[in-house]
Amino acid sequence: GRRFGDGGDMRYSEHVKQDRLWDRLMDLAQIGATAKGGVNRQALTQEDGTARRMLADWALSRGFSIFQDEIGNLFVRRSGQDDTLPPVTTGSHLDTQPTGGRFDGAYGVMAGFEALEALEDAGALTKHPVEVVAWTNEEGARFPPSCMGSGVYTGRYSLEWAQAIRDPEGMSVGEALVSVMARTEDARPRDFGAPLAAYIEAHIEQGPVLVTEGETIGVVTSVQSQNLFEIEIFGEEAHAGTTPRANRSDAVLAAVEVIARLEKEALDDADAMRFTVGRFIAKPGAPNTVPSHVTFTIDLRHPENAEIERMSDLIGRLPATVAGARRCRAQVKRLSDSPVTPFTPEIVDLIDECRLALGLPGRRMPSGAGHDAMYIPPLAPTGMIFVPCVDGISHNEAEDALPEDLAAGARVLADCLAELAG
Amino acid sequence: GRRFGDGGDMRYSEHVKQDRLWDRLMDLAQIGATAKGGVNRQALTQEDGTARRMLADWALSRGFSIFQDEIGNLFVRRSGQDDTLPPVTTGSHLDTQPTGGRFDGAYGVMAGFEALEALEDAGALTKHPVEVVAWTNEEGARFPPSCMGSGVYTGRYSLEWAQAIRDPEGMSVGEALVSVMARTEDARPRDFGAPLAAYIEAHIEQGPVLVTEGETIGVVTSVQSQNLFEIEIFGEEAHAGTTPRANRSDAVLAAVEVIARLEKEALDDADAMRFTVGRFIAKPGAPNTVPSHVTFTIDLRHPENAEIERMSDLIGRLPATVAGARRCRAQVKRLSDSPVTPFTPEIVDLIDECRLALGLPGRRMPSGAGHDAMYIPPLAPTGMIFVPCVDGISHNEAEDALPEDLAAGARVLADCLAELAG
Ligand SMILES: NC(=O)NCCC(=O)O
Ligand SMILES: NC(=O)NCCC(=O)O
Repeated sequence: GRRFGDGGDMRYSEHVKQDRLWDRLMDLAQIGATAKGGVNRQALTQEDGTARRMLADWALSRGFSIFQDEIGNLFVRRSGQDDTLPPVTTGSHLDTQPTGGRFDGAYGVMAGFEALEALEDAGALTKHPVEVVAWTNEEGARFPPSCMGSGVYTGRYSLEWAQAIRDPEGMSVGEALVSVMARTEDARPRDFGAPLAAYIEAHIEQGPVLVTEGETIGVVTSVQSQNLFEIEIFGEEAHAGTTPRANRSDAVLAAVEVIARLEKEALDDADAMRFTVGRFIAKPGAPNTVPSHVTFTIDLRHPENAEIERMSDLIGRLPATVAGARRCRAQVKRLSDSPVTPFTPEIVDLIDECRLALGLPGRRMPSGAGHDAMYIPPLAPTGMIFVPCVDGISHNEAEDALPEDLAAGARVLADCLAELAG
Repeated sequence: GRRFGDGGDMRYSEHVKQDRLWDRLMDLAQIGATAKGGVNRQALTQEDGTARRMLADWALSRGFSIFQDEIGNLFVRRSGQDDTLPPVTTGSHLDTQPTGGRFDGAYGVMAGFEALEALEDAGALTKHPVEVVAWTNEEGARFPPSCMGSGVYTGRYSLEWAQAIRDPEGMSVGEALVSVMARTEDARPRDFGAPLAAYIEAHIEQGPVLVTEGETIGVVTSVQSQNLFEIEIFGEEAHAGTTPRANRSDAVLAAVEVIARLEKEALDDADAMRFTVGRFIAKPGAPNTVPSHVTFTIDLRHPENAEIERMSDLIGRLPATVAGARRCRAQVKRLSDSPVTPFTPEIVDLIDECRLALGLPGRRMPSGAGHDAMYIPPLAPTGMIFVPCVDGISHNEAEDALPEDLAAGARVLADCLAELAG
């Protein structure tokens, strides 16, 4: 498309309505609302299905069309002048953490929908179709790893592999998909990997940089590297009162030693490593039985690939050594493996130009969190727009954001999409 | 009653039938049978109710009467010549660990029932009634602490306190009791603390002493000291990718440090301390959210009260210190607290005399495991009979025992009860 700024006719940001965007976000936040003001709308639950249906109904009521692929990614399309051209796509996700907030994911979908509505209100004619997508299971909270829907769409994960993943209660993605996808069975089928002209995702920052520095727009240059591990320790049940220490194969004490040692190794001078054991499940879970099985996860992030690889090597080796010395056995699986992902320079520049043209204060910055956008670069030019969130808090029911910041991000997004769609 | 050995007329052990005892145990083991040959019949589940009903039906078919108290302890009574006299009571429990075996608890109930049948087959007239009781929730696996039914019966715990205890899914003892007790609603009511003339419990040893030394009967002199703690660590949810270490309140890493440090402190020269973290529940349990809440248990045992007290003091103090240094908060509850429990010397002597009279090899020994018998001494003279279990394994689906050892224990029990019942 033309470079942005060639003509005022391509600026649809003035049609973005702050109140409409906010109201839609608050409507969405009702689905899975928690007592503490957050949202629990985990992937492929009935609540997730209800949120997808709400999006589909909004789309249909505006004359947009809907598409769904086999992992449940839901696309809302506003036609272009030539619908054989690949769409310019934006989006994010509707699923949340169990203790999630109202904006993580939902904002990117509703900002995208607001951009489509702005185009529609203006009667804009774009060459390419413009799309907003709700990717399935971005959080990976119930079914790790995260960014599952975008990973399958782009061929990073196979559909079969994803469908086989189970939640702690034993339900698989494949099983959970059936009833959720049925809620939007009026959607047309969409092939995996169908080409995109470009992809831009809007998101709250989920960290403290913008809010601390008083900026409104983050122009995201890259996503830091990120590996997710699932570690299992196998021991043997025994009586807690009678079994001598030397005869025990205690999976919890072995797991505790593994975690304590890895936490120490994760300390770096710059304090840039992020080391998180978010899930720890011990079985059989009786206070007076020596536990025989532990599953825990390690979420590891760092701005540099080399640091992630150093720790990942250790995570691959240490559990077997520690478990072996404690008469247990260990198994380490790497569930996901994402080196630093740079975004496409032309898209980064375009976003920065659009926010400058709108007079919005901002800066270039890397992303600490992972996002669906991180899997798109092999398929299409990709970038991201951040807006501030209060105190940098996310993955917490207290997550919050200001209506004017959310609208600012949507305005930048609308102008970028229009520019790219020609 | 008379001292044992005064007359051959008081020996009913010859009426104990090894096959009948074994067959009843195998019938019971069907209820909650697991694929690995064990039993999962946790307290106050439907399986527990089915096992109680089976016992009640066996009792009624032999003309015995049944009683039930408000915590669900189920008593089977064979009348004596004077039913106003307090009963001579035996028993154990029908609930199991989640990965339980076929004999832990079930053996003590069925050995007691076999003793009642032996008296019945012989047409014995005893002065006192003779009873077998299935205590509620001895394991404390689902609803800690263990020995709940006997604890409430003897006034160690209040009914209200016990009823309020919840399993990890949030169901309370009070709620779970309703449908389970309804299965035996034909039982007559029984008051808590109704006097017993004596109490003797038969049990598999659950440890390696008898089997290693080639003995058949363990004459139990005491139960080692035992404390159960529930520790909660409170942190705060945060994003695993964006939140700097200095801003985290990570409940899992705090719990891991607490456990690693306490494990080291629990090491003693004699290696007599038993330190077990059997339950560890982390929330919200998403791999990419810093966990905000951990509940874990510490089961602590030692043959000496002083050693338990030393460790218990530390368990009371260390979690707050460690959690505080990690921006978390800790709460420590002592769920149960049992010093060394010596059994009644006259009962210990009686058991030893009975096993000698039957020509059975045996020895006096302390119990490493806790048992309902440990709460009875304030109410009545109390003792226990152990029989070997294969490889000393218990709280494991592989738990096993030999039919002839089980019958030997029941024969000692039958003679002891007859002697005590006069
Ligand atoms: N954006 C977001 O919080 N997604 C979850 C993926 C991650 O863990 O970074
Ligand atoms: N006997 C038995 O295993 N009961 C459970 C109580 C304990 O933990 O020792």
